[in-house]
Amino acid sequence: MTDQAAPPRSKNRLNDSEDDVLARIEAFRRRRPRLIDEFVTLAHGAGGKASAALVDAVFFEAFGSPTPSDPGDAAVLEVPAGRLAFTTDSYVVNPIRFPGGSIGDLAVNGTVNDLAVTGAVPRWITAAFVIEEGLSIDVLREVAADMRRAADAAGVAIVAGDTKVVPRGAADKVFITTAGVGVIPEGRELGARLVEPGDAILVSGPIGSHGMAVMLARGTLAIDAPVVSDSRAVSALVEAMMDAAPGTRWMRDATRGGLGTVLNELVQAAGLGVIVDDDAVPVEPAARGACDMLGIDPLYVANEGMFAAIVPVAQADAALAALRSLPGGAQAARIGEVVASPSDIVAVRNAFGGTRIVDMLVGDPLPRIC
Amino acid sequence: MTDQAAPPRSKNRLNDSEDDVLARIEAFRRRRPRLIDEFVTLAHGAGGKASAALVDAVFFEAFGSPTPSDPGDAAVLEVPAGRLAFTTDSYVVNPIRFPGGSIGDLAVNGTVNDLAVTGAVPRWITAAFVIEEGLSIDVLREVAADMRRAADAAGVAIVAGDTKVVPRGAADKVFITTAGVGVIPEGRELGARLVEPGDAILVSGPIGSHGMAVMLARGTLAIDAPVVSDSRAVSALVEAMMDAAPGTRWMRDATRGGLGTVLNELVQAAGLGVIVDDDAVPVEPAARGACDMLGIDPLYVANEGMFAAIVPVAQADAALAALRSLPGGAQAARIGEVVASPSDIVAVRNAFGGTRIVDMLVGDPLPRIC
Repeated sequence: MTDQAAPPRSKNRLNDSEDDVLARIEAFRRRRPRLIDEFVTLAHGAGGKASAALVDAVFFEAFGSPTPSDPGDAAVLEVPAGRLAFTTDSYVVNPIRFPGGSIGDLAVNGTVNDLAVTGAVPRWITAAFVIEEGLSIDVLREVAADMRRAADAAGVAIVAGDTKVVPRGAADKVFITTAGVGVIPEGRELGARLVEPGDAILVSGPIGSHGMAVMLARGTLAIDAPVVSDSRAVSALVEAMMDAAPGTRWMRDATRGGLGTVLNELVQAAGLGVIVDDDAVPVEPAARGACDMLGIDPLYVANEGMFAAIVPVAQADAALAALRSLPGGAQAARIGEVVASPSDIVAVRNAFGGTRIVDMLVGDPLPRIC
Repeated sequence: MTDQAAPPRSKNRLNDSEDDVLARIEAFRRRRPRLIDEFVTLAHGAGGKASAALVDAVFFEAFGSPTPSDPGDAAVLEVPAGRLAFTTDSYVVNPIRFPGGSIGDLAVNGTVNDLAVTGAVPRWITAAFVIEEGLSIDVLREVAADMRRAADAAGVAIVAGDTKVVPRGAADKVFITTAGVGVIPEGRELGARLVEPGDAILVSGPIGSHGMAVMLARGTLAIDAPVVSDSRAVSALVEAMMDAAPGTRWMRDATRGGLGTVLNELVQAAGLGVIVDDDAVPVEPAARGACDMLGIDPLYVANEGMFAAIVPVAQADAALAALRSLPGGAQAARIGEVVASPSDIVAVRNAFGGTRIVDMLVGDPLPRIC
């Protein structure tokens, strides 16, 4: 098997003198590969020259290369002693571009927001791409530019990444998985276990816009409503609220499953109940109209730029004022209260005194919205 | 749009007395959803009840839930002050199971190894799944079990995750993206800039087995060779080598693009050259045979359980002895040396004195091998 008399396997094999070798190798110098393709091919995922060219031309170009002289596999972070938050999410939204955003900013904002609602200050992000063969490289460049803009807006650095390419039909355009690390300020404690009866429930902004914007962008419904995704980093909102309401008990961004589902997760974890005033929950008129037409409860629609928070009643007004002073927080609202009984239940009260119970989302009215 | 006289949108709406409400809500208690499905559906990715059931029954079951009372979006890590390594990789291997491993252990080992060769002690992993609708839940359970076994073997905890489901045909079975964080011991410095002419090139084990094992497992070639993937965490090997050879300059796991490509990355980053002795590079006989039959140079075949290292000559024997004493390191070998000139070149010398230049991989002889 190791017979050296076998035919040469490489066209580069040279049985020449050392001088000949030295002469020929000049041709290999200064050979940093350049991207000349218009569409992604399997070679771009093979880890060789084409991969390097794609990463250089698209991702390093957009994100910057933290250590251009030594592009290793892992980024090195300088951290203080203490607690970090660490999270990940995959993004498979279809279509990849929609009013108010794209899979690129969503992939950054979603992970930034998961860190922020844990009480962390988001700092570093990784991005891994699974690309379908044949995707336009211009589309990829736009997605990468969206990611850079979102990262800059959120104050995070994209420090490491990966690119895989699968054959046509083995994926749908592009999936992005981001992971994030944030630093939790000393002394900050949050958790469902800290929530108490009487606490106020706040939301940082209107619900329902993201899921409906993506749904309508598919163009399969004969509805033409100006619904715009709320894709946005909430980290600045979180920090402003924590300053104004340091007793904040719990936060959660209401993504898949919507506000209704995250409040259910809260009551189950806390062993308490919540009562929400339907009229107090902000919903953009266009999003509400689209929900009404499709028979979808906005409480179950995914959001990507708002969060729910539980704060002590005494700090609720200060929290709201802080949220409302910032972009993305103008419609922040107090939507209800935590109760001891009935426990484990999300009850929604309307203006006529009727009450409905909102369970966790069952089924999936809106697949692939994030 | 907010007219409360509109027909009720939820079947749970109750316009009854509070007592009636209280009576009915008993039915909602103790309602932690249980997984009763055999195949993954879109609802398992919607973030609602089915998602919770899938995560409980498959992922929490396999990985353990770090904070079962409060399953938030981000894990909280206690870290010392200093440097962390942070990395990510997506795994799209086809088939998802092959001799010696599966997409599950690969997704853990690959990210563990990226951290280890940065000089970090791997500690925490996240795992994000993009699942094709219709995948058997038993298959997913097996993949999760493989991940847990690999994580335990590597001494890392899987601390956070995500599950997305895409419609049939929008992905191929399952893609897994892991991200990892490791702690870099104080004072440890590695990098291509530290490499010097005369340094020894080591490999921790044989090359070529992983890529060929996956290729043959597809069954599209009429070759029946006992090639087994080397999927394995190298973190223990790295630590043993760093103890024995504290002057180690640089390490890299030779995954996509193979040993030939990572050595090219090294010479480009260091501005030096390397000369490799072809006969000294360990290749399992079955893997070499398969490479010969397919006309593939083992230097370009992906590995998932070995790494290349540059060490000072004076520490090379100690490093080799340390590697050879551990599982996965028995075939560790010294395969060549770093040279000042010709620079930027990976030259491979055979037993007859012939020399070939091994460039970075061009094209992709083996798509979707990791």
